[in-house]
Amino acid sequence: MQMAKVIGSVWATHRHSSLGGVKLCIIQPVDHERNPQGAPLIAPDITNQVGRGEFVFFVDGGDAMRLVPGPRLPYDAAVVGIIDSLSTDKD
Amino acid sequence: MQMAKVIGSVWATHRHSSLGGVKLCIIQPVDHERNPQGAPLIAPDITNQVGRGEFVFFVDGGDAMRLVPGPRLPYDAAVVGIIDSLSTDKD
Amino acid sequence: MQMAKVIGSVWATHRHSSLGGVKLCIIQPVDHERNPQGAPLIAPDITNQVGRGEFVFFVDGGDAMRLVPGPRLPYDAAVVGIIDSLSTDKD
Amino acid sequence: MQMAKVIGSVWATHRHSSLGGVKLCIIQPVDHERNPQGAPLIAPDITNQVGRGEFVFFVDGGDAMRLVPGPRLPYDAAVVGIIDSLSTDKD
Amino acid sequence: MQMAKVIGSVWATHRHSSLGGVKLCIIQPVDHERNPQGAPLIAPDITNQVGRGEFVFFVDGGDAMRLVPGPRLPYDAAVVGIIDSLSTDKD
Repeated sequence: MQMAKVIGSVWATHRHSSLGGVKLCIIQPVDHERNPQGAPLIAPDITNQVGRGEFVFFVDGGDAMRLVPGPRLPYDAAVVGIIDSLSTDKD
Repeated sequence: MQMAKVIGSVWATHRHSSLGGVKLCIIQPVDHERNPQGAPLIAPDITNQVGRGEFVFFVDGGDAMRLVPGPRLPYDAAVVGIIDSLSTDKD
Repeated sequence: MQMAKVIGSVWATHRHSSLGGVKLCIIQPVDHERNPQGAPLIAPDITNQVGRGEFVFFVDGGDAMRLVPGPRLPYDAAVVGIIDSLSTDKD
Repeated sequence: MQMAKVIGSVWATHRHSSLGGVKLCIIQPVDHERNPQGAPLIAPDITNQVGRGEFVFFVDGGDAMRLVPGPRLPYDAAVVGIIDSLSTDKD
Repeated sequence: MQMAKVIGSVWATHRHSSLGGVKLCIIQPVDHERNPQGAPLIAPDITNQVGRGEFVFFVDGGDAMRLVPGPRLPYDAAVVGIIDSLSTDKD
């Protein structure tokens, strides 16, 4: 899984019906020191607990999404948790 | 999911029969400020609502495509929604 | 899907039995203006209509391949169509 | 599979219920000479034998994760082994 | 599929039980002119015919691996053939 910061949200009223009405976040992938890595993505928050500015982790790939219990939505990424803290060798 | 701008369309009369006759768009992946990110791709518009120049989002990976209801087409990406607006921390 | 130019072919008599005897092309991924993008790949031609030098598109990912009707071959990419023409905003 | 060094761990009490309570490592992908390659990732240790600083290998992609026996967890990467030693042509 | 050169092998006695005892190669992805492309990977040789220094091709992605007949192993890449020769437009 990759780390990311939640930097915004998206309104999209015209979307494929299979996508449902879930909230869509804009997330900026980051490394463990919160440096940006690549371009921002759109991902649903399937925890329903994520706010802007939070440090989260997300699964990447529709194949991982298929393992999430519940209705199968055709997303290719999803925020699945909030990082409380982390420690690394350089701490 | 990634953001993209629809920049064109493709004619391809010789295609594998399983691909069906769906309209194929050329999309340029972009970030949330609409700066191009990487090379353009070909993706079907499964919303049937997308026009040239529009700001859209697409799913990437055939695994996500398998979650879309209906006949299973061997695409590895598809436009699934139009972005009405977005807001980010820098707004 | 990505665009590519067919630049050659491969002989490989020692291959896993599940791969079958399908013709293997060397394809150079390109953008919509036919500029090379990244390194060449090996992909079977499942249309049986592709010749050298042609401008084609291919699906990427074994998950997409699983959606192709017929025997399931463990390929991670395949040429699925020939591009007759395309138009973009800059035309 | 890719090689990596285990460089830390993550605490995440708010996570999607399907993720279970497995230990989450921070891993830095490396090449065979242990040079860093790209940004660190978060991955569960499904061997239950990995410590900090160890040289490991991990599978990437939720599709591979689906082949691991046991309950299906929506991870997109996992540490699956420890590298005891390796030899290359330049040895 | 991508081309690669087999550059070494890995010993890993602590591995997830589902991985089996298959031989693990270190492969360096290359282009069609054998120039290195990106970082080396670890992949099993499912042909049982590959030696060091050989020019091979491999499938990438656990989804492709699921199409290989036989027991399903959670690998995300595998060497599936040896390249005897290739020809390109620049020959």
